[in-house]
Amino acid sequence: MSELRKDPVTGRWVIIASERGNRPGALPGEFPEEFPTHGSRCPFCEGNEDMTPNEVLAFRDRNSQRNKPGWWVRVVPNKYPAMRIEGPTLRVGEGMYDMMSGIGAHEVVIEDPHHDVRMSDMPEKQIEEIFWAFRERMLDLHRDRRFRYVMIFKNHGAQAGATLEHAHSQIIALPIIPKRVLEELDGSQNYYQYKERCVFCDIIHQEERDNVRVVESNERFIAFHPYASRFPYETWILPRQHESFFSDIQIREVSDLARIFKNCVSRFKTVLNDPPYNFIIHTAPFTEDDCPHYHWHIELIPRLTRMAGFEWGTGFYINPISPEAATIRILNRDAENTETPTEKNTN
Amino acid sequence: MSELRKDPVTGRWVIIASERGNRPGALPGEFPEEFPTHGSRCPFCEGNEDMTPNEVLAFRDRNSQRNKPGWWVRVVPNKYPAMRIEGPTLRVGEGMYDMMSGIGAHEVVIEDPHHDVRMSDMPEKQIEEIFWAFRERMLDLHRDRRFRYVMIFKNHGAQAGATLEHAHSQIIALPIIPKRVLEELDGSQNYYQYKERCVFCDIIHQEERDNVRVVESNERFIAFHPYASRFPYETWILPRQHESFFSDIQIREVSDLARIFKNCVSRFKTVLNDPPYNFIIHTAPFTEDDCPHYHWHIELIPRLTRMAGFEWGTGFYINPISPEAATIRILNRDAENTETPTEKNTN
Repeated sequence: MSELRKDPVTGRWVIIASERGNRPGALPGEFPEEFPTHGSRCPFCEGNEDMTPNEVLAFRDRNSQRNKPGWWVRVVPNKYPAMRIEGPTLRVGEGMYDMMSGIGAHEVVIEDPHHDVRMSDMPEKQIEEIFWAFRERMLDLHRDRRFRYVMIFKNHGAQAGATLEHAHSQIIALPIIPKRVLEELDGSQNYYQYKERCVFCDIIHQEERDNVRVVESNERFIAFHPYASRFPYETWILPRQHESFFSDIQIREVSDLARIFKNCVSRFKTVLNDPPYNFIIHTAPFTEDDCPHYHWHIELIPRLTRMAGFEWGTGFYINPISPEAATIRILNRDAENTETPTEKNTN
Repeated sequence: MSELRKDPVTGRWVIIASERGNRPGALPGEFPEEFPTHGSRCPFCEGNEDMTPNEVLAFRDRNSQRNKPGWWVRVVPNKYPAMRIEGPTLRVGEGMYDMMSGIGAHEVVIEDPHHDVRMSDMPEKQIEEIFWAFRERMLDLHRDRRFRYVMIFKNHGAQAGATLEHAHSQIIALPIIPKRVLEELDGSQNYYQYKERCVFCDIIHQEERDNVRVVESNERFIAFHPYASRFPYETWILPRQHESFFSDIQIREVSDLARIFKNCVSRFKTVLNDPPYNFIIHTAPFTEDDCPHYHWHIELIPRLTRMAGFEWGTGFYINPISPEAATIRILNRDAENTETPTEKNTN
């Protein structure tokens, strides 16, 4: 049984997923993969549906059967979950320490039935379907009152933490709100109290006016390298209109999101030589009924530099390329994909 | 000129070190190393002192000359610093954004004159000298009123961010306090207000009583895997008596620190198969005169698992091995180095 444990100094929660680490063969330096390797039999490929737990959602042909071929996006529970969905939600003190039972959901979104297709190669329509699957799962998990937050993220490439090659992303539903999200909620609330405006809406205005960090924009979304980028080519994608919850996205908006997202990952591939990358959807937590200060967004980060230890030890980052220089470089070399070329200006 | 930029949502400061990234040849995916590679001529080896900037501190033979051989620990400015020590401390608004000029110090501590010696192999006496050099540099940088915090850290191994093989650590003096340190200061202050005790002192007591996560202790220091470990075998080393500032360490304490530190990194080498690792010294900032709530410590973390992107994107960690299981494993296999064997108890 995994546990959630709270650091008594900073209040940060950690999952101790002993079930994953204590399995036979899990020696130091040989931590278990999300899924074991199956040689040529990939558990995510169409036709191998029997190798995964039963699907919780699939977009599939009308005539096909559950857990059989005929799908184009498929969501299954993680075979070796960090948290389990069954069991009581216990909160216990252990001396001065605080512990919670590791109740949660851990699912895998299989993004394509074919083994070799990457998001950067997919038609926009397929990416729309993936985002729509995220929304459906989020709404469904929302109904479970034990969960306070749903994290949706992707690790693309082994260096970014992926353990299977077949394109997939992950969903984790948690009984707590992650620390970074709490910080964003607190920070944006402080700003709102002071300015009576959403800080993210103000950032969008500033980025459009400055026009030196914008990578792309369309009717409903904008993508830019944030002013205080932690990493080279760190990219944020935001809805231009204020929206707090990702799960409120409408079908007419998803196509704009899919287009801007595809163009961003395609540029990573063509301009940055196909690096590993991560994305995370940041959304307001379930527990907030109304959230005028928070604006959902996607953080998309190519893994170009080795992450030195002091960065996660201090929360302090050194970025060797300014977001303005990164914007010039990523747009220069990929002119044909650029829908809204921004001014080429170094400062 | 590098800049410090503040994220308007979370308040996190980032160094945009454009001087490092905009140098000729610094293409995407080919970020500049801390020091260029010199083939067989290592700039940190004894005899190659002319390849580094002039030393700011060296422990050396009485008859030797500055910037010549004859030293055993040597501290030099980083040749490609993330921040520069000269120049005015400007604070500027850029629209809604906040910027500060990148004033700071960035130094390298060369830990041994010989190329192939690692901390795990050094005599304790040499490790004492290294920690004493940290203290001397911290006290000296303390005199510069522009700096509010000094970070001391080490990246051992390429996967942990090191760019040169020769054993070295780094010092960065900053005009701001890093976010993680601020969180620890806030958290420990809240605890102090509530309990009128230092949270770290309470943790030490709890760890000694539970005795399932303690790796080693001696008269003045204790090393344990923290209750809410983010990473497998994450190790904290604390002085047993309350001390807020690392730079207050006394000469009689340094030998106990060197011994416990050496034993910890030696166990990493023998039990965990010589992994890359990082350590960071966490100390109270210069700006605090008295700090009854904060307790300096070292965080020492082997890099055994790939860090997935959602972890730095959410501040939420999944650790596949409980700190109790990690304690059993690291002590079992290295019985001859263990000075204070702890009880072998899984729960």
